[in-house]
Amino acid sequence: MKYYQYEMLELSFPADANPQPLPELIAQFTNGNNTISVKGFYAGDNTYRIRFLPEAQGTYAYRVSGVVTAEGTVEVLPAREGHHGIVRAKGMHLAYEDGTDFHSFGTTVYALAHQSEALIDETMATLRRSPFNKIRTCVFPKHYLYNENDPQFFAFEKREDGSFDPSLPCYAFWDAFESRLRDLSDMGIQVDLILFHPYDCWGFATMSQQDDLIYLDYLLRRWAAWPNLWWSLANEYDLFTSKTIEDWYEIERFVAENDPFHHMLGNHNCYQYWDAARPNITHMSWQTRELSRIPQMQKKFGKPVCIDECCYEGDLSAPWGAITGREMTARFWRTHVRGGYCTHGETFTPDEREIVYWAKGGRLVGESPARIAFLREIMESLPGQLDPYYSDYEQLFLMSDAALQEMLESGTMRTEIPSGGIRETPLDERWRRFIRGLRMMDPMDRERYMDYALSICGHHGEEVFLYYHDIQQFESVKMELPEDRSYRIDVIDTWNMTRETVLTNVSGTIQVKLPAREYMAVLAVAEP
Amino acid sequence: MKYYQYEMLELSFPADANPQPLPELIAQFTNGNNTISVKGFYAGDNTYRIRFLPEAQGTYAYRVSGVVTAEGTVEVLPAREGHHGIVRAKGMHLAYEDGTDFHSFGTTVYALAHQSEALIDETMATLRRSPFNKIRTCVFPKHYLYNENDPQFFAFEKREDGSFDPSLPCYAFWDAFESRLRDLSDMGIQVDLILFHPYDCWGFATMSQQDDLIYLDYLLRRWAAWPNLWWSLANEYDLFTSKTIEDWYEIERFVAENDPFHHMLGNHNCYQYWDAARPNITHMSWQTRELSRIPQMQKKFGKPVCIDECCYEGDLSAPWGAITGREMTARFWRTHVRGGYCTHGETFTPDEREIVYWAKGGRLVGESPARIAFLREIMESLPGQLDPYYSDYEQLFLMSDAALQEMLESGTMRTEIPSGGIRETPLDERWRRFIRGLRMMDPMDRERYMDYALSICGHHGEEVFLYYHDIQQFESVKMELPEDRSYRIDVIDTWNMTRETVLTNVSGTIQVKLPAREYMAVLAVAEP
Repeated sequence: MKYYQYEMLELSFPADANPQPLPELIAQFTNGNNTISVKGFYAGDNTYRIRFLPEAQGTYAYRVSGVVTAEGTVEVLPAREGHHGIVRAKGMHLAYEDGTDFHSFGTTVYALAHQSEALIDETMATLRRSPFNKIRTCVFPKHYLYNENDPQFFAFEKREDGSFDPSLPCYAFWDAFESRLRDLSDMGIQVDLILFHPYDCWGFATMSQQDDLIYLDYLLRRWAAWPNLWWSLANEYDLFTSKTIEDWYEIERFVAENDPFHHMLGNHNCYQYWDAARPNITHMSWQTRELSRIPQMQKKFGKPVCIDECCYEGDLSAPWGAITGREMTARFWRTHVRGGYCTHGETFTPDEREIVYWAKGGRLVGESPARIAFLREIMESLPGQLDPYYSDYEQLFLMSDAALQEMLESGTMRTEIPSGGIRETPLDERWRRFIRGLRMMDPMDRERYMDYALSICGHHGEEVFLYYHDIQQFESVKMELPEDRSYRIDVIDTWNMTRETVLTNVSGTIQVKLPAREYMAVLAVAEP
Repeated sequence: MKYYQYEMLELSFPADANPQPLPELIAQFTNGNNTISVKGFYAGDNTYRIRFLPEAQGTYAYRVSGVVTAEGTVEVLPAREGHHGIVRAKGMHLAYEDGTDFHSFGTTVYALAHQSEALIDETMATLRRSPFNKIRTCVFPKHYLYNENDPQFFAFEKREDGSFDPSLPCYAFWDAFESRLRDLSDMGIQVDLILFHPYDCWGFATMSQQDDLIYLDYLLRRWAAWPNLWWSLANEYDLFTSKTIEDWYEIERFVAENDPFHHMLGNHNCYQYWDAARPNITHMSWQTRELSRIPQMQKKFGKPVCIDECCYEGDLSAPWGAITGREMTARFWRTHVRGGYCTHGETFTPDEREIVYWAKGGRLVGESPARIAFLREIMESLPGQLDPYYSDYEQLFLMSDAALQEMLESGTMRTEIPSGGIRETPLDERWRRFIRGLRMMDPMDRERYMDYALSICGHHGEEVFLYYHDIQQFESVKMELPEDRSYRIDVIDTWNMTRETVLTNVSGTIQVKLPAREYMAVLAVAEP
């Protein structure tokens, strides 16, 4: 048996006569630098398993105690190609454990694993051809519009009273789900695993808090060493009738404390976004259409902002499921250019098979996936990930009243420059007039105004500037680039998926001709 | 000479040897019920003129005093067809003095009157064929992008130092401008006359406050009896460097006090909208793209909301001048369905003649005017003007925290019904859950959320419900209509300009099939 860095390894032991799903079974792994304890679980088939994710190469010693005692060493070989470790927050961006950037392009198939094998296979084939490298999917089946079938297996067996008993895992369910996690892992797809959701008719959404934690204990013992998982505490946590905010805090704490590898941990809202400032939360997992607020949230939380629902491409008779492929594509651009990460879904009215991709998987028929692939290709070709970029004019909008007042008094405007420094500019009458105007606006009005007034632009230091012009059909645009570097300018048609270099070796203020169409972007990349 | 109700009448007198532009000259008109004083002006050509707008038919007696003394009577005949008097605010809507609804469909030609006669004639021909019944245009010429020509006449003669002197009107200017006001009046077009604007190179934007009032005195003596004028204190009042807020207050007061007929009076912003709660202000004249806030502003001010700039159809390299015809049309629908009034403009990159419609007039080449005509036809065919309509669910979003708390405590939901009454509904668990969720949101977050969550629907009592589905490509929609009336349902394609009756004699909850395209509207009209 060979073990590799960033790949889950497993120890197995024969179970005793009356195995407990959550046995007293713990293993300590140490490589000298780090010691990590992991708990074992009963996997059915008379087998206890202990899973560990080696995040370094070299020798790990382990010592197992509890219902099994054992010790030994494992040799962990260097990471194989394509294995980069767990995705983690790195400032407002995402990167694998080994430092490789992760550009998250999400999709949504809520009840993926609760369908027939044939349909799941079809979904996997679809995902293999798709641009998506993250998927939001539920542990529990979903009961909702176009989600009305019972799955073959549930996560637990039933008690005598007919209710599901989290202390009795249905091993066939966990084995089957796990085989799909493996498929997704093989495709390099991160699984944003939804631990709870309110669309339920079986009682999974209304279990006691004690049962919730028993369920999570099993799940975390079993899956926490899996590198491509993220924990999404809930889909629409704020729609549960049966859980208080304190219940959610306890669930959040339990997951964080029982995950030895500290996977990404978020909580997805319907109305009020979850407070991503909480220490155990790694990123904002936001259902919203307020994409212009992404920079505000990046600043508020200092963490990555994942737009984990912003309507789906389709034509269902619900506002969340009826945007065009053009609009879905635009929402990806609006998000990624600002340094956020967007998530897709598809909701076309189905034929008699009643298969809607967002619910059950199957095929993708929409127009956005090809364009999202084009965007992903561009983002991954850049020398680094983007942060929102604002001109001096735009930066003033974002400043506090006190900062504006200070500038009026000092007569000096202080703005951030793309390389990270501060530029000081004397305040002329034009700027003073503008600042006075801003200070007349109340905070709500100023925020609402900004929404439309700020351009959609991202930068990577001074190396990259990427403007997305959205629904504006400019005939040409002016760009202000640093004077002391030289840039190549590409005009990108985000809908028709063309990219053309129109200028090279330019700097400072330039004018770029555009075709007077919507959905154009202009990319400036510093030349070597 | 015959005089008619709602048409300006004029008395003329030979001027004395050294006529003052603003002579001591006043006339009192009385018909027994009302007495109105109007001031006279010197019109050039050795003539003093006194203008009056009879708002009633019958006999008016007048007595002139000052540099001329005279008295007499005029017989005012009943209004001729097409003459309805001054447009006035009527709650949140607009109506002529005689009570006829006015559905304002605005356009923008800032420097209309400062062009060659041939070009102005072309503009008039364009407007005659257009759907627009209100135009925003400036008294003073404009110096700006695509506005670089000097006009033939300015409003004033110059002093010896070369500066313009408001106490010396250039009568040729006023005569020429006035002949265009007459053209516009003949077409039934309201002129939203912009009294000041900051895009200036001649000194009109930086005159002393005293000079401003001299100019306004002349303008009001001369034009206040004209029925189809509105006063727009400024275009982008908040961009003037030379005027304080108190200056604007004085200008506002002066205009209100020197307009015997109380025309519509607004002030147009760049950043911070003018406070439409001020008693002399008749309506909100709002430059904004925040069309979802129209109902909020209607409620805040209790006055009509005119969206007097929301970007223009075109492709100029500025965000305010580069939206598509589709988007311009959509902004009209988003505004009018909510009971507001929208204003158009067109800004395509010009040929070598440098004529951009929004600046100088000429021809319209965009795609939106035909669609705006289609919208106008629909709005004018309805039995009354629209108010925003919200479902119970949507109304909860708009309630204060205190109102929501009260509902949780009383267990009763109180919502407005379209006929004007209140419906009381027992709060079930689903509603409680939702209200608790709303109360978790901070005010900014709740407002931002609503922005996208509320449907775009207007109603006229229970007689009309009009839903605009905007960029959503629904395959069908559910509508909840009153149970006790019967409706005809029309499906409207706002872009392709088709309208088809799809259901008749329906009531209560209905499902309407749509073609899964953007920009559809559904109209329900109560059957007789």
